[in-house]
Amino acid sequence: MTQVAAVSADIVLHNAFVVTMDGALTVLRDGAIAVVGDRIAAVGPSADVLGAFPGAAQTLNLGGRILLPGFVNTHVHTSQQLARGIADDVDLMTWLHGRIWPYESHMTEEDSYASTLLCGIELIRSGVTCFAEAGGQYVSEMARAVELLGLRACLTKSTMDCGDGLPPNWSSCSTDDCIQHIAEIPYENQLVMRMKKIDHGTVTYLEKIDFLRSNLLAAHSVWLNESEISHFSNAGVKVSHCPASAMRMLGFAPIREMLDSGVCVSLGTDGAPSNNRMSIVDEMYLASLINKGREAYISGTTNPTVFPSETLLTMATINGAKAVLWDNEIGSLEVGKKADLIVVNPFKWSMLPLHDSIANIVYCMRSENIESVMCNGQWIMKDQKIMNVNEEEVISSAVKRATALLARAGINLPERMNYL
Amino acid sequence: MTQVAAVSADIVLHNAFVVTMDGALTVLRDGAIAVVGDRIAAVGPSADVLGAFPGAAQTLNLGGRILLPGFVNTHVHTSQQLARGIADDVDLMTWLHGRIWPYESHMTEEDSYASTLLCGIELIRSGVTCFAEAGGQYVSEMARAVELLGLRACLTKSTMDCGDGLPPNWSSCSTDDCIQHIAEIPYENQLVMRMKKIDHGTVTYLEKIDFLRSNLLAAHSVWLNESEISHFSNAGVKVSHCPASAMRMLGFAPIREMLDSGVCVSLGTDGAPSNNRMSIVDEMYLASLINKGREAYISGTTNPTVFPSETLLTMATINGAKAVLWDNEIGSLEVGKKADLIVVNPFKWSMLPLHDSIANIVYCMRSENIESVMCNGQWIMKDQKIMNVNEEEVISSAVKRATALLARAGINLPERMNYL
Repeated sequence: MTQVAAVSADIVLHNAFVVTMDGALTVLRDGAIAVVGDRIAAVGPSADVLGAFPGAAQTLNLGGRILLPGFVNTHVHTSQQLARGIADDVDLMTWLHGRIWPYESHMTEEDSYASTLLCGIELIRSGVTCFAEAGGQYVSEMARAVELLGLRACLTKSTMDCGDGLPPNWSSCSTDDCIQHIAEIPYENQLVMRMKKIDHGTVTYLEKIDFLRSNLLAAHSVWLNESEISHFSNAGVKVSHCPASAMRMLGFAPIREMLDSGVCVSLGTDGAPSNNRMSIVDEMYLASLINKGREAYISGTTNPTVFPSETLLTMATINGAKAVLWDNEIGSLEVGKKADLIVVNPFKWSMLPLHDSIANIVYCMRSENIESVMCNGQWIMKDQKIMNVNEEEVISSAVKRATALLARAGINLPERMNYL
Repeated sequence: MTQVAAVSADIVLHNAFVVTMDGALTVLRDGAIAVVGDRIAAVGPSADVLGAFPGAAQTLNLGGRILLPGFVNTHVHTSQQLARGIADDVDLMTWLHGRIWPYESHMTEEDSYASTLLCGIELIRSGVTCFAEAGGQYVSEMARAVELLGLRACLTKSTMDCGDGLPPNWSSCSTDDCIQHIAEIPYENQLVMRMKKIDHGTVTYLEKIDFLRSNLLAAHSVWLNESEISHFSNAGVKVSHCPASAMRMLGFAPIREMLDSGVCVSLGTDGAPSNNRMSIVDEMYLASLINKGREAYISGTTNPTVFPSETLLTMATINGAKAVLWDNEIGSLEVGKKADLIVVNPFKWSMLPLHDSIANIVYCMRSENIESVMCNGQWIMKDQKIMNVNEEEVISSAVKRATALLARAGINLPERMNYL
């Protein structure tokens, strides 16, 4: 008699509207997912999956709720969360010299840990299961917070080698060691043209030094010309489009042209002092609006048909996975991939009626519709409760540290109104 | 012995961060408000107000929460709420002929009632206590829903007299009877120039026929030139800026120039098929971003210093009140005005830390931070419970009606993905 190795699922989620974001953009109207360990073991019609995995440890009827891959936020400064509100409505020089550099140079390792925990809660509540850190000073503290929260992340240290008023201990690496923010502002292009004797800007220079590769994730990418878009496309460079931050500080990136050229564009929030909502849910909505609106400056009228909702969902999921080079592991709900997923409750005032569920996910959904989040096969938020940290304690500690840090850094904000 | 007419308050709210939006932009760090009947009887430091109204029927310690005037949404089609999701990512002609006109011409009075109830719930949850209806067919049904919800509103019937495919029963009034949507799209200006023999567009024509008065509320107002902005300013015309809808369908309105010219600009959401979030909270955030970003097309770089958060709060409150000609009654928290106010809980992941409370209200607040809403001295939402209707029943009925209405109108939406 042969022993059958019967694999039993840890979790089966059924009776769901499953938006897989696989290559065929398959949607299952009454679908289910089975999770074994940290991976997806089955995706299919509810009846089939329930039949194949009868003895799951946890079987949940989702009552028609929506299942999506976890969102990937490809540009977020987790160490800046304690700085939310310190640099609103000021010019770029004040932002850097008067606010952000003093903040960052007075930050301790413990502050960075507290900031990443607070930021992580906002990321999870907006459906993010994986993010690319845009850079801070204390990577090991970020890692400690991310591990505790149960998130997936690419972490990185920020590097700069020039800039008036740059904290001195930051300039130990050269420009060429690490370049991430690309073509953010027109002045940057002018500077690069003058210093490097080239005919456009940063991207032209990076192409010349053979820096553009498929493992480069270029944030913002606002001030690119046509040939620079081609350089990105030819090299397979990935872009992180941060619509809120771009509108506030940088300008309109040629995102439609990049997508038309085959560039992989994903979405990012940037840091709290640049945005200030750290919600990829809002960034999808914003990306749709500003890129439809931007067409008015190109063709004379807006074009509501560009950036349809399916494109925006692609940017927030599988393109995000490609941007961090993990598209074999995450970014869609497919057998063998990591179980990173979110449960959305659309049966609320904010999303009804549901004539077009895909459009409503992108244009109507708000973070309050996101009920549960799973990363690596583990619930990291369940029924809107953050699972792995005590949320109140994280918030309370972060707020205290934020106040003390501002006092230490000598950052005093002007009063906007007449306070009594 | 003289009898003293001791007025006792119905409600005293104390220990609040009171953002009054009065002429001096007074903020009380530890403030209170007393409500007698439908009006504000006192605004001041907590100790003073508690001392003056010791025997209030309801005395609430708000624990440092924020008190704001209720927001005024100056452009919303409440009858279009059942159409959310039916017209996304399509061009304007499809939007009108294939979706919205069939929808509106198959709508019954009961549908309109259900739609206004559903829309009203979203308005209340985003802090709106007063709105200007942008136009539908069944004003008495809107009125019935608004009264039940406890909201304040200016209601109106929509009027059009030309347009291929316009439902025939709509063209009974002439253009001059009622003009509300002004200079929405460039084509409109071209048409008016040709038909009316004038040198720019709609606004130039309206000035010529002496239509521009201080009681005109002009929605959108995207395609205005400099002299048309002057016409608005000189006549005291009020503008409803609808950033989401403008980005999607219309273009960038010259809002900074209007504010510089002294035009009173308020905020609106437009209808659900144009937006699709019906949240003035999100419109404040959007108005900030797109108007900062728009400067890139004027000066070469964005200008983060324009549209500071205090300006956006002004647009959403007292300017909204001016737009509906009720600024003597609502729009700020002042003694003698109607008690229309909202209670915001900022002590959550979405708004902390609170280094700059005014900025965080505009840039970080989400509808989930709005805990309670009072209109005309009555709680219409308390601790996130809608008070005057059964929310579940409203939603359930609205969804059924929406499905039936689409079937009756023969509106079939293409599938965006591969449905199994």
